[in-house]
Parts: sequence; structure tokens; C-alpha cells
Amino acid sequence: MKKVAIVGASGYSGEELVRLLLNHPQAELAAVTSRQYAGQTLAQVFPRFANHPQAKALRFTEPNADLLAKQADIVFLALPHGVAAEYAVPLLNGGCTVIDLSADFRLRSAAIYQEFYAHEHPAPDLLAKAMYGLPEIYREEIKKSQLIASPGCYPTSILLPTIPLLKARLIKPAGIIADSLSGVSGAGRKAELDYLFCECNESVRPYGVPKHRHLSEIEEQLSFAAGTPVTIQFTPHLIPVNRGILTTLYLAPVEHFADAAGAAAFGEKVAAAYRAAYANEPFVRLLEGKALPDTKNVVGTNVCEIAWRLDPRTGRLIVMSAEDNLVKGASGQAVQSMNILCGWPETAGLI
Amino acid sequence: MKKVAIVGASGYSGEELVRLLLNHPQAELAAVTSRQYAGQTLAQVFPRFANHPQAKALRFTEPNADLLAKQADIVFLALPHGVAAEYAVPLLNGGCTVIDLSADFRLRSAAIYQEFYAHEHPAPDLLAKAMYGLPEIYREEIKKSQLIASPGCYPTSILLPTIPLLKARLIKPAGIIADSLSGVSGAGRKAELDYLFCECNESVRPYGVPKHRHLSEIEEQLSFAAGTPVTIQFTPHLIPVNRGILTTLYLAPVEHFADAAGAAAFGEKVAAAYRAAYANEPFVRLLEGKALPDTKNVVGTNVCEIAWRLDPRTGRLIVMSAEDNLVKGASGQAVQSMNILCGWPETAGLI
Amino acid sequence: MKKVAIVGASGYSGEELVRLLLNHPQAELAAVTSRQYAGQTLAQVFPRFANHPQAKALRFTEPNADLLAKQADIVFLALPHGVAAEYAVPLLNGGCTVIDLSADFRLRSAAIYQEFYAHEHPAPDLLAKAMYGLPEIYREEIKKSQLIASPGCYPTSILLPTIPLLKARLIKPAGIIADSLSGVSGAGRKAELDYLFCECNESVRPYGVPKHRHLSEIEEQLSFAAGTPVTIQFTPHLIPVNRGILTTLYLAPVEHFADAAGAAAFGEKVAAAYRAAYANEPFVRLLEGKALPDTKNVVGTNVCEIAWRLDPRTGRLIVMSAEDNLVKGASGQAVQSMNILCGWPETAGLI
Amino acid sequence: MKKVAIVGASGYSGEELVRLLLNHPQAELAAVTSRQYAGQTLAQVFPRFANHPQAKALRFTEPNADLLAKQADIVFLALPHGVAAEYAVPLLNGGCTVIDLSADFRLRSAAIYQEFYAHEHPAPDLLAKAMYGLPEIYREEIKKSQLIASPGCYPTSILLPTIPLLKARLIKPAGIIADSLSGVSGAGRKAELDYLFCECNESVRPYGVPKHRHLSEIEEQLSFAAGTPVTIQFTPHLIPVNRGILTTLYLAPVEHFADAAGAAAFGEKVAAAYRAAYANEPFVRLLEGKALPDTKNVVGTNVCEIAWRLDPRTGRLIVMSAEDNLVKGASGQAVQSMNILCGWPETAGLI
Repeated sequence: MKKVAIVGASGYSGEELVRLLLNHPQAELAAVTSRQYAGQTLAQVFPRFANHPQAKALRFTEPNADLLAKQADIVFLALPHGVAAEYAVPLLNGGCTVIDLSADFRLRSAAIYQEFYAHEHPAPDLLAKAMYGLPEIYREEIKKSQLIASPGCYPTSILLPTIPLLKARLIKPAGIIADSLSGVSGAGRKAELDYLFCECNESVRPYGVPKHRHLSEIEEQLSFAAGTPVTIQFTPHLIPVNRGILTTLYLAPVEHFADAAGAAAFGEKVAAAYRAAYANEPFVRLLEGKALPDTKNVVGTNVCEIAWRLDPRTGRLIVMSAEDNLVKGASGQAVQSMNILCGWPETAGLI
Repeated sequence: MKKVAIVGASGYSGEELVRLLLNHPQAELAAVTSRQYAGQTLAQVFPRFANHPQAKALRFTEPNADLLAKQADIVFLALPHGVAAEYAVPLLNGGCTVIDLSADFRLRSAAIYQEFYAHEHPAPDLLAKAMYGLPEIYREEIKKSQLIASPGCYPTSILLPTIPLLKARLIKPAGIIADSLSGVSGAGRKAELDYLFCECNESVRPYGVPKHRHLSEIEEQLSFAAGTPVTIQFTPHLIPVNRGILTTLYLAPVEHFADAAGAAAFGEKVAAAYRAAYANEPFVRLLEGKALPDTKNVVGTNVCEIAWRLDPRTGRLIVMSAEDNLVKGASGQAVQSMNILCGWPETAGLI
Repeated sequence: MKKVAIVGASGYSGEELVRLLLNHPQAELAAVTSRQYAGQTLAQVFPRFANHPQAKALRFTEPNADLLAKQADIVFLALPHGVAAEYAVPLLNGGCTVIDLSADFRLRSAAIYQEFYAHEHPAPDLLAKAMYGLPEIYREEIKKSQLIASPGCYPTSILLPTIPLLKARLIKPAGIIADSLSGVSGAGRKAELDYLFCECNESVRPYGVPKHRHLSEIEEQLSFAAGTPVTIQFTPHLIPVNRGILTTLYLAPVEHFADAAGAAAFGEKVAAAYRAAYANEPFVRLLEGKALPDTKNVVGTNVCEIAWRLDPRTGRLIVMSAEDNLVKGASGQAVQSMNILCGWPETAGLI
Repeated sequence: MKKVAIVGASGYSGEELVRLLLNHPQAELAAVTSRQYAGQTLAQVFPRFANHPQAKALRFTEPNADLLAKQADIVFLALPHGVAAEYAVPLLNGGCTVIDLSADFRLRSAAIYQEFYAHEHPAPDLLAKAMYGLPEIYREEIKKSQLIASPGCYPTSILLPTIPLLKARLIKPAGIIADSLSGVSGAGRKAELDYLFCECNESVRPYGVPKHRHLSEIEEQLSFAAGTPVTIQFTPHLIPVNRGILTTLYLAPVEHFADAAGAAAFGEKVAAAYRAAYANEPFVRLLEGKALPDTKNVVGTNVCEIAWRLDPRTGRLIVMSAEDNLVKGASGQAVQSMNILCGWPETAGLI
């Protein structure tokens, strides 16, 4: 058993972390912080957890890194970008393992951080020490890391389907397009007009076109996989569901196929690449037959569904993925990293 | 005033036609047919129209082409594909103008029809006589036609933003990608498990990948505009809203631009092409400034919203459109064609 | 033609007034005010109206009662309670007709206003001059009034089904229960956490139990109808739809009926009372046969649907109503009052 | 460990049973039946469970009572009413414990069954042997029973808040009103037009007024609690959420209170009755302070939330409850009964 804490536990990702950690067999939730709710119990702030024995006892506190360093072995930061570093530094110095759900430590380059997040990086020295917490790609590195930068929701939905194909040199690194549809919880628990029920319900809309912040980490990771700089097209859309991301990827095979037979031959290579990468992964589901991803099949789980089709008419490879933006896209993946670095079963508390 | 009839008025498109025609200043709704509801009044079947004076008087009848030819000057066919021809032939022979909302007369080629719809075309002779009822492109031809093939919902959302760019030779005809998101009414009023509330709510999913039937008419029309055969990538998704289609198009400019300045210069050509095509169109709205299309701004209207962005990072042109699949994507557009061929104001009954 | 203005046109009721008045055959929308959007055009703030010719020309202004009194013959106030009086006084003095959608002039008693709204009434002298704008009940009085207090959304859904039964002495004035379900637009366009998409979607909840503010006007009006003081039970609930109120009323018949035959006999009296009250009303729909109210049949219309059932098992009368909270429950009803007091057809701009 | 089976596992309740039993620490899911899906694996039919190790191995079979009696110790029947008896008789004879989720064994009286379900009871002899599986009320009886009739969803939401007050003689048995709002999964996974997405979304409607079938078991159980025959008013409504029931109860206190002080004094008795009944219940949550029930706080859990308000204006007691219709209202409650009769921790597999 290890003691864990959550800093910034009152947003949607924080709430999901609470859910997962309250029920985790090896982790004990020792502290939760929130400026807004300090003094209230978990049960008061999140009635849906109220019947959990611990929820009536544990109270939100004001965030205090020094205190947290004494209370917890592992600290999850569920804070806005730009703020996480302020806690990460003293917590790391205090001997804690830090799993950060913000964007602050996901990039290797402070310059790219500044380009995309419009302010100087608050702790550039830590960038080299942080490990990008995508377990299916960096499992071994995560085991040895004290600072995990848990990936963004869109990046997870794009990287998992794309990296195995890039590594296997089956698709061209140029010209990748990712078209993503996200539930509204992705915007966070913020009192803004744009995210009111009546503004989102019966509405479908793109946003952040053409340069969304998540591009920075997506492209950095794809470049590592391809061994060459990768620039992609990424269009996020807001969809009236609470949770879930559906991503459709348009990819260019390295081979030309003129007909269905050619497509089938190339398809065997794609299938083999995916099987090699994910057949034994507990949280990636390669769909078979006619099945296509559907967010309702992954919501509430840490699973990313993947399916693909080759189009002999266009010569293109279409890959589709579905995940829960708050679980595999945020808090579930963070817990998965914790399980790995603690040497626990990777699925602990996640099935 | 002209007398109009609707064959197959009990589906979602038929219901929307009823709404529009009940309130049309020049058209008198003289007959509505439905096998399922024959004998019932409009008010009984569609309570939302019940306070319209005509709704209590007009009763659904069994469809009978000979009778309809005597009752109406203009007949709208809101039937499944493969069935419309059976009514179109006797109605045309009887002197009626026919506006067909099915796919039956949208293609010039009976062979392509058979490839995509999996049965022989029921009346291939009529294909040459039918006019594709996209008013912004074929206004003059519609005026002279007795048989209008009203476009599909996805095709409208793709063709309106793409054709002016192809005609102006601003984008390459190859490599076009259309990623579309549709409300559930697009699936029709069918008692199938897939479209139950609990199967669609809190769900986002692709379908019909990679060869949806609408590709046939999209590609035929794009080929006409480009003057060369066009093959596109098209991915439809089902989204939990009643109405609305949001399409995101990925297009390749004919010019290369290396930076924001180059993009701005090319952007002026795009803006000019759109203004030339649509500045005076009553039902196309070119968005300005930071605005992006949102289905909630067009639902219930015959408007198609269009916005575009050039991405200097990728050199690509992103165009987004939003429409109501049942209005501009079906019944509103059909009424717009009627207005044109009758010489009425094009916006009659549509604003 | 008369010139009309809207003060506070940027909320949901204000937006609905804009929609109705832009398309009204006798009214010309001369001014719209909004502190937040002053300087912007209607087309910019409400893209869904952008294709209306006037929407590109008309700009929001800062509210200024003296100026409005010169610009408009009729002024609609779509403001929060407590603020409307500030505009009503100078507008009335300036010769305008004022139609107020807030709660400020709905009550005869300033003391009850203070009890329910927790502040002193800002213009108690005007209470006697204001007419409660429920056309089906006060049509003649509305014709003669210069200050209309347009009813609240819940009150309309409760008063229309109840008043005819009280007036006909068919139900007891004591023990009335109204259980109401409202769409989220009823909460207004306010950036509050409680009304975020993720807080309302997949949620059903009561609120304001047991003393909601609307009780004050409901009980005052029911007391007038009954000729005796009436106190009712009222429970509002928030439901994840944009628009619509469904109210279920539990009423005690004055007659006891022991079985189905007795119920049928009493039912004829109920039916007769409703027919006498509403058979000729354009905006009340008495459902027949097995039909029950459904908000989807009234959304976007000025219609209130009513159905009732006698329960021989309990001796109780159940009455159900459905309306659009923003149309018959707010802006449509206000336009209906305008039509009446201007001597225009009552349905002008509303069908 | 015991072996369990589910007959009729392809509906929404059956799917929820699968979810709970796959993750139950003491139960091993040995068989699932479905005529429609026989031969397919759980993973194929329910992709959301596909990553559970057992889901790829376990296949749906045709239902066969004799075989099931050999495969399982405990059999859950998730079948339509009228069909369950056909399986219950041979399973009981074969030595199995049967937990039936249908209405077939919930009533003591075959005559009332016939009145409400419109066909003769298929196995009236079993009615005396069956125990109504509402654990908070019948925990001791459930321990000794071989045939559990698990309560309906609406009944659970009404009985839990009402029975303690009737038993404590705090409310009058006459005049009870229950107004309930249910998510669409309550209608089952049936391909009917009424439950299509577009027919339910943006719709709120009552149905089954005034004599819904669930009245039979509600009134029987309330009569047991009151010691006198009870007839209630019950109005169900369909609400556009997947899951959840919100019930508002209008109750008459046995004491008259004239003011807030009187209400407070009586309120202490109400609070005491609820505490006595539920303070130690793991699946009933008595809300405190200003909190009111909200279905989003119970969805996915086996918890029923309860809050109440006394209205000094009307002298009435308002009680509100929220539950997940598929968990506490169906499958979770059935598992809770299994836990009790097996002597396992009552919360096993349910938190």
C-alpha cells in the first residue's frame, strides 16, 4: 500500500482520479486539495462517492506542497497548465513521485512549450527528467521515472493508433490528418457560456482550428516514432456527450495498392503491426470484423478501441479510435502509470 | 398558387416538407400519402402541426400516382431509393413536375447507380432528363426541368464548400477528404435497434467506412466542377443530436505557401472565390472573423454556413460547413428548387 | 406597422423575441439593447438570424429609456426581476406601451412581491396599472392596458389547465399539486456551474423545493379564478432538454365518483369546461383519444397542449400540459399580447 | 464461490447483470442465454466488457432450464413478464436458487396479477413461496428464500422512501401521490418507433396514465407496511437520459402543523424514522442540508438517494428519491439479494 494525494481534485479529471483511487487495491487516498472546496468532505463535494467509507472522512485541504510531501508517496497534479510546476518542484525535492496531468512536462522543448502555451516554461530544467506517461509506448521508462507527464486526451487517441504504423514504416510521416470529436468534459468544469447545456446540446462544432495546443505533444511524439520531424493536421470538434473522444485518422500507406487484392495484402501488414504492438495490451482493443469504434463502448473504462480500413479507391488507410477522455485520456492512464512504476499489476483498480 | 402533394410524408424528411409546405405562401398542400397512416389527418400524425387550419382537414391517403397526377401540379417524392421511379414515371406522364428526394435520379450513370445501390436502376431513361437540384450551382437548369433530383444531405454539405474552389482551380481535385458528422434523423424514422435513444445518446461513432452510397453523387458532381474525374475520401459519423450535419474538408491548395504571409495571399483568392459564388446567395452564409460553423445556428433553417482556414504549418486548406440535414440537406432545398422552377421568390416559405 | 424595441435582448427570452419580431408582419424591430453586446449587430450575436436582411443592419445599443421612448411604440423588457421598473417608468411616461417579461409587475401585492423576491418592490404604484398578460384569461383587459406583465413559464403551464376548472367549480381550490419539468433554458443564459452541459446532461433533479418564486403569481391568479385564497404545492425539476415544460397537475374533483361510470359522467363536465374555455383558442390544444402532451410537439410554437385523465381508483383528476417555456411561456405569449392590444390578428407572427 | 447464470442476458437489465457478475468476487458467471445471440461471445455482443478475460470465452447459449440447473447454483431471470415462470419451475425443481427480475413473482395475489398484466398467472402456486427482494425491508426473509422476486424500478424508488414513514405511522396511508421520471432504458432494448433517439431526445412526456402495471406491487407492499389497503396515484414520465429514476412523493403527515416551528418539530420525527430505517444501510443515502437527489449522483451505483422537505404553507411532506433504474432498480438489487442469501458481504461486487 502507498499513500497518494491529488492536487486540484475538484475538476472533472480530479473527480475521476478520486473515483479510481478510492477503489484502488494498493493505493490509499491520503489527501485531496481544492482551494474552492477546502474544509468540505469528499462526500459533500461528490455525492456519487458518498457511500464509500472514506468519502465521509476525507476533507479537501488548501494545497500545500510541503505538507503533501509528508502525507503522500505519490502525488497526482490535476491543475491547469502553468501551475503544475509550482507544486512539482517541492514535491520532487520532498521525495514524492509526481504524476502530472497537465501539459507542463509533456514536451522536451521549452521553446515549443512557449510557442503553444504562450508563456515561458516555469521549470525548464525538469523537462529532461519527465517521462511521457503513455504506458503502451514507454512502459520501461515509466518504471524508472519520478516525474510522469501524463498525456493529453486528444494525443492519446491519436498516438496509440499511429505510432505502431510509423515505427513499422507502413505509413508516410507526412500528410497525417487527425479529425477528433470530444465530449464536453474535455473543456473542464469551468463556468463559461460556451459550455452551458443549451449552448452544447443540439450543437456540433469545430474549434481551435488549425493550431490546437495538443499539436505540440502529438507532433513531438510522432517525430520520435518516425525518426523524422512530423507535422500533422488536427481538427477538434465539440460533441454533445459528457465523455468520450472519437478520432478518425487519414494516413498514407508507404505502398501503393491499385485494387482490393492489393489492399488486402497491405492490410495484413497493418494487422500484423497492430497485433505486435497491442495484442497483449490490457487497455487497447483491436476491433475485428465489421466492428467500428463507438465511444459508448469505452466510456468509464481505461480502454482505447482501434479499427482500421484500407480504401482501395483512394489508396488511403483510415484508422479510427475511441476512448474515454477522462479515463484513458487522463486519470485512468495516470493510474496505469502509477501501477507500472509501483510494480503493481498494471490493471489494478482499472478493471 | 399551385397544388402540391407529398408521397411518403410520414418519415422525417416528409414531415419537414409538410411543415414547409403548410406555411408556403404560394403552394397549397393538396395531398399527402402514407401507407402506414392512410385515413388519419395530418393533425393526428404530426401533433406539432395540429393548430394549422389545414392539418385537421387533410388526411393521409394510400399512394396512387394516377390520382396524384390529377390532384397536384408538383409532387414531392420522399421515398426510399429504388421506389421513387415507380411514381415518377406516371406522374411525369400525367404532366406533373416531380421533385424527388431519394437517390434515384441524382446520377447520370445507371452503372454507377447499380454499383452503389446494389440493384439495377428502375428507370434509366429518366436519368438524362433529371436535373440535380442544387440551386446554387444549377439554378438556370432547374428552371427548365420537370424532374428534379434533390441532393442528399451529406452531398450538399460537401459540394457547396468545394465546388467554387474546384471551379476556380484553387484546389487540387485529387486527395479531397470529407469528414462528416450527422444527427440521427439522417437515419430516417426506422424502428431499428441501432437508432434507439440508449444506443445513440452518449455515443459517437463512424459508420459506412470507407464506401458510403453518397460518394456516387458527390464524386459525379465534383468531377463536373473539376472537369476531371474526382475520387474523394468520405467518413460519416453518427452524433447524438436530432438534426444537423457538420462537415470538415481537408483540401490541397494548388499553390504552395511557406508561411503566414503566403497563406494570407492565397487566402484572398479563396475569399474572392467564395464571395463570387455566394455573396448574393440567400442560403449560404460565409462566416467572418473568428466564427466557425455550428449546427445549432442552422437547425430549422435552409442555410449552409461555411468557414475556412489556411494552415501555414501544413499548407492545407480546411473548410467547414454546417447545415440542417432535413432542411438544406433535404426538404428545404427541395422547396427552394420548387420556388425556382415556379418563378417564385427563391426564399418563399423558407425564411 | 409599429416600431418595437427589446431591452435585454441577449438572453434566451430576448433571443426568442428577436426571432419572433424579425418575422412579424406588423412590427418593425427598431432597437435592441444589451450592455454586453452593445455595438455588435444582431447577425454577429445571433448567427442563426444572420440571413435575415435586418440582422446585419441592426446593432445592439446600451439601454437608454429616454432614447427608446423616441425609437419605439412598444418596448419589450427582457430583464432580471428588480430591474424592469427602472425602464418601465420612463417608457410609460414617454408614451410607450411596455410588455415586461420579468416578474416585476405580475403581482397586485407589493408585500407578496417582497416576500418572494426578497427586496422591496421598486415601483409599487404601477402594480395596479399592470395587466397580467395571459391572453386566454384576460384578453379584453389586455386590449386596454399600457403595461403588460407577461406571465412566467411555469405559471402559464399551470394556470391554463387549472383556471377553467376552478371557474366552473369542478375542482376544489384546496390541495392542488403541480409537478413541473423544465428544460435548461429556463435557467437563463448564465455562466454558472450548475447549468454546464456535463452537470445537466444525464441528470434529472428537483430544485427550489418547496417555495419557488413563481408560486406567488400562480396562487394570486388561482385565487382570482376560485374566488377564494388558494395555496398550492409546486415542485419544479430540471430536465436535460433545451426547451419545454411538462406539468402534471393533481386535482380533487368536487364530486365523488366510485367507479368508471361515475368518472365518465364527471369527465363530460371536465371536457365541456375545457371546450368552453379553449375550443376556439388558437394557442391551446386539447388532446383527444389516447394522446398525452409531449414537449417535442410544442417546442418552437406558441401552443400549450392539455390532456386529462380521471382516475376511478383514486377519485382524482390528473391534468397534463406541455409548452415551450421560451414561446408560450415567455416571448410568444408577449407577442400574443402585443397582437391583442394593437388590434392585429392574434396569431400574427406566431404561426 | 458459486456458479451463476443469466437467462435473457441481452436486454439492458441483462447487460447490467453481466457487468456486475463479471466483476463479483464470489460469483462465477457460468452461463448466459439469449435466443438472438446464441453462439456469440460476451465480448462480441457487449464490446464494453470485451477486455474482461471471461468475456472472450463465455458464449451465449439457447436457454435450456434443465441444462442451466446443472451449470449454475443461482439463476437470474431477466425475461419479459409471463415467461419467467416457464424457467423458474424446472430450475427450482433442479435445486437452483432463482432470482427473477420480471414481474411474475412480485405479487401475492394471482387475481391482481391478472388484473394488471392481462393474462392468467402461469404458476400461481409459486407466489406464496416467492419473496419480494427489497433487502432494506425483507433482509431476513431473503436469507431463507429460494425464489426471489426482485422489485421493479419504479416500485423501488417509491417504496424505499415511503415504507419507513408508513410503518412509523407518520403519514396517512390515503392520498399518496408518486410522480416519477425515468430514463429511456426503462423501456427495454426494443426496436420500437417510440424509443428512437429522435422521438425521445428533446422530449418530455407522461405515459401509462393513470394505471401503470407497477401500481400492483407498489400498492401491495405499501398495504403491508401500513397494515391497511393502500391505493396511490402514480404518474410515470419518459425523460431523455439513458438511466435514472427521479421520484417526487406527495405525502400527508398525520399531524397538522401550522407554521415553520410546527414543521420543524414534525420534521424531527421524519428524520428519526429515516435514520432508524436507513442510517446503517449501505445503499440508501439520506441527503443532508440543502442537497436534493440528482440521478447523476447515483447512475452506475446501487444507491438510492432520499431527501425530504416539509412545507409549512401546505402542511405536506415532499419526499424525493433518485436511483439508477438498471442497478438499484433492477440488476444491482438482484445481486444485493444474492449476496444476502449466500451470506456474503451485502456490498460484494456492488461498490
